[in-house]
Amino acid sequence: MMNFNYYTPTKVIFGKGTLDQVGQQVKDFGGKKVLIHYGGGSVKRSGVLDRVKASLDQAGIGWTELGGVVPNPRLGLVRQGIELCRKEGVDFLLPVGGGSVIDSAKAIGYGVANDGDVWDFYDFKRVPTACMPVGAVVTISAAGSEMSNSSVITKEEGGIKRSYNSDMGRPKFAIMDPELTMTLPDYQTACGCADILMHTMERYFNVDTMELTDVLAEGLMRVVMDEARVLVKDPKNYEARANVMWAGSLSHNGLTGCGAGNGDWACHRLEHEVGGMFDVAHGAGLAALWGTWARYVLPEKPGRFAQFAVNVLGVAPQGDDTATALKGIEAMEEFYREIKMPTNLRELGVEPTEEQILELAEKCDAANRGALGVVKRLTREDMAEIYRRAK
Amino acid sequence: MMNFNYYTPTKVIFGKGTLDQVGQQVKDFGGKKVLIHYGGGSVKRSGVLDRVKASLDQAGIGWTELGGVVPNPRLGLVRQGIELCRKEGVDFLLPVGGGSVIDSAKAIGYGVANDGDVWDFYDFKRVPTACMPVGAVVTISAAGSEMSNSSVITKEEGGIKRSYNSDMGRPKFAIMDPELTMTLPDYQTACGCADILMHTMERYFNVDTMELTDVLAEGLMRVVMDEARVLVKDPKNYEARANVMWAGSLSHNGLTGCGAGNGDWACHRLEHEVGGMFDVAHGAGLAALWGTWARYVLPEKPGRFAQFAVNVLGVAPQGDDTATALKGIEAMEEFYREIKMPTNLRELGVEPTEEQILELAEKCDAANRGALGVVKRLTREDMAEIYRRAK
Repeated sequence: MMNFNYYTPTKVIFGKGTLDQVGQQVKDFGGKKVLIHYGGGSVKRSGVLDRVKASLDQAGIGWTELGGVVPNPRLGLVRQGIELCRKEGVDFLLPVGGGSVIDSAKAIGYGVANDGDVWDFYDFKRVPTACMPVGAVVTISAAGSEMSNSSVITKEEGGIKRSYNSDMGRPKFAIMDPELTMTLPDYQTACGCADILMHTMERYFNVDTMELTDVLAEGLMRVVMDEARVLVKDPKNYEARANVMWAGSLSHNGLTGCGAGNGDWACHRLEHEVGGMFDVAHGAGLAALWGTWARYVLPEKPGRFAQFAVNVLGVAPQGDDTATALKGIEAMEEFYREIKMPTNLRELGVEPTEEQILELAEKCDAANRGALGVVKRLTREDMAEIYRRAK
Repeated sequence: MMNFNYYTPTKVIFGKGTLDQVGQQVKDFGGKKVLIHYGGGSVKRSGVLDRVKASLDQAGIGWTELGGVVPNPRLGLVRQGIELCRKEGVDFLLPVGGGSVIDSAKAIGYGVANDGDVWDFYDFKRVPTACMPVGAVVTISAAGSEMSNSSVITKEEGGIKRSYNSDMGRPKFAIMDPELTMTLPDYQTACGCADILMHTMERYFNVDTMELTDVLAEGLMRVVMDEARVLVKDPKNYEARANVMWAGSLSHNGLTGCGAGNGDWACHRLEHEVGGMFDVAHGAGLAALWGTWARYVLPEKPGRFAQFAVNVLGVAPQGDDTATALKGIEAMEEFYREIKMPTNLRELGVEPTEEQILELAEKCDAANRGALGVVKRLTREDMAEIYRRAK
């Protein structure tokens, strides 16, 4: 067991109808002029945006708005947001959406609170000293950005996807109303579940272990898998939506990795490059790569993969750890298929050429400064080989 | 499933050697002059107090000190602390100990930050508007006060034990070094485990349920029970100490009750009166009362007690819920005996007269303003009957 810090200052307001508390929450946290930040038209069509504005008006909070955030949120829009905040005297950021929107807001927050180019922080050139306060209205259960310290942004030029992590970026509050997720397309719901599971799996396959953390992580993963299956058949199931939503936050606020180290994160980083080059849905990209990664690194920690197989997938022990572990990986892939997620790149709709594979590996290696993976430290050639086998 | 708020702003610094970070943490949170608050001589004998002072000195933080906190911490010492803080210009409270010491510090915090009599807040007469910041150094795993919003104080006159709960009182940081708990007497270690379990049990037997919360709560309880048994035989086991310590915080920061309601708390409040009148160890008092309470209220929720029996105690289902539930209650009492905790008042060393029982019930009813219990709302006569049956 390793030492750890655990810091989750975000105030969570969870449940039916909580959306209408947003104005009061902004007020409680000292906001006077808000940037409402969102993606496409769904928050307009669903009436969520109007409810947010009404709640802000009622609390006497001024607001301006910036829509247009896309999955794999773009640096260009972040720059626009920074300019808009400065022009309008915004002092509080209110993303309304999923991880992309919240991540984009965090980036705007770093940009406004610091001089110079905001990309420097994502490019490891400088460290910000502050972030404008963010409060999140979650409408997609997936990224867990509403309680996390991380923000992932894609620079259009070169399709470079990078993350910056800092406690300064953790939202002050998160409004989490599971009903807001009920109108999501089934594919996006499944992508969200895949992403949530992977946030805990990245922490589960780690340097070390802590018994309590294992039990919490394994239980959380079982619940998410059960509820993901329910949502395939019954997308309006409130209990399932709520369990998935809360799991999304707990999966990325640090709880499921306490005492185990910083996590592996190879799948995430390998997927980031695919997302940057091909603009695929993040959760689907993770599902497409995980099985290949797992088989590739399995020889390093067969016991751990066997524990995962038994305690999470319900696999019966097979005599030796590797055999048990392989059954577990198969069961996980079978689960992905059940929720209509891909288990390889072709099913993801991506067929990279050998040249593109080498480029993906090169970019991934550069982005991680030659230090990717904990279960197995991956060389550039390992990365290329995983992309190849995942085809 | 019910709506809920979840707010755990405390920064946790967990693991071996983290004690020496205390000065830096106080500095990071803006403290300049600290009151070191503690109990008896054990933190002196163990060298913990000297290490705290050295760390503060190194960070350039001024300090004064006030020892003498006892289990069921007293209002008199709280008043002394308030006076001392005002005289010495203290701006940050640093309890070094377990729940009693942290609770006492919170009470001092309310007292310094507000005019008038601090007991008013515990006596439901007024509500404080602020609390001086608190950072906790945990040396006993039990109360979970290091992440909780609650503080329990006993007024000497009449032995009245009351709690006040507010997010303002949540500590800014908690230093949690499991090694500091290794020198605890076995009885105190077991009392701590009983208290930790009860914090989750109070939330588990509740108005409603949420699947994810159930799984996390049940897993946590199983781990605490396993590790409590380990510590009976091997009190220096670091992993067991660490799991129990972290479970102590997670058991009382709200996590194990999300979506389920505010909890039952009857056992806690029934025990508070016993603690106020007879000054017994809190965890032991809880263990002494729980079985009687459980059998008394079982007819209200046999299904829930059966789930507890199967998922936490590992009882095989018995055909009907009540039979399964009773096996579970027996298994829980057997566990208490394994860790040398009492399962009735006599074993606790308390033999109240009928007159004392009526007084306990009357005080408990008054303290809870006639609204105690969720599984079963308890009348004053119910309370007296539970005390009687627990003899």
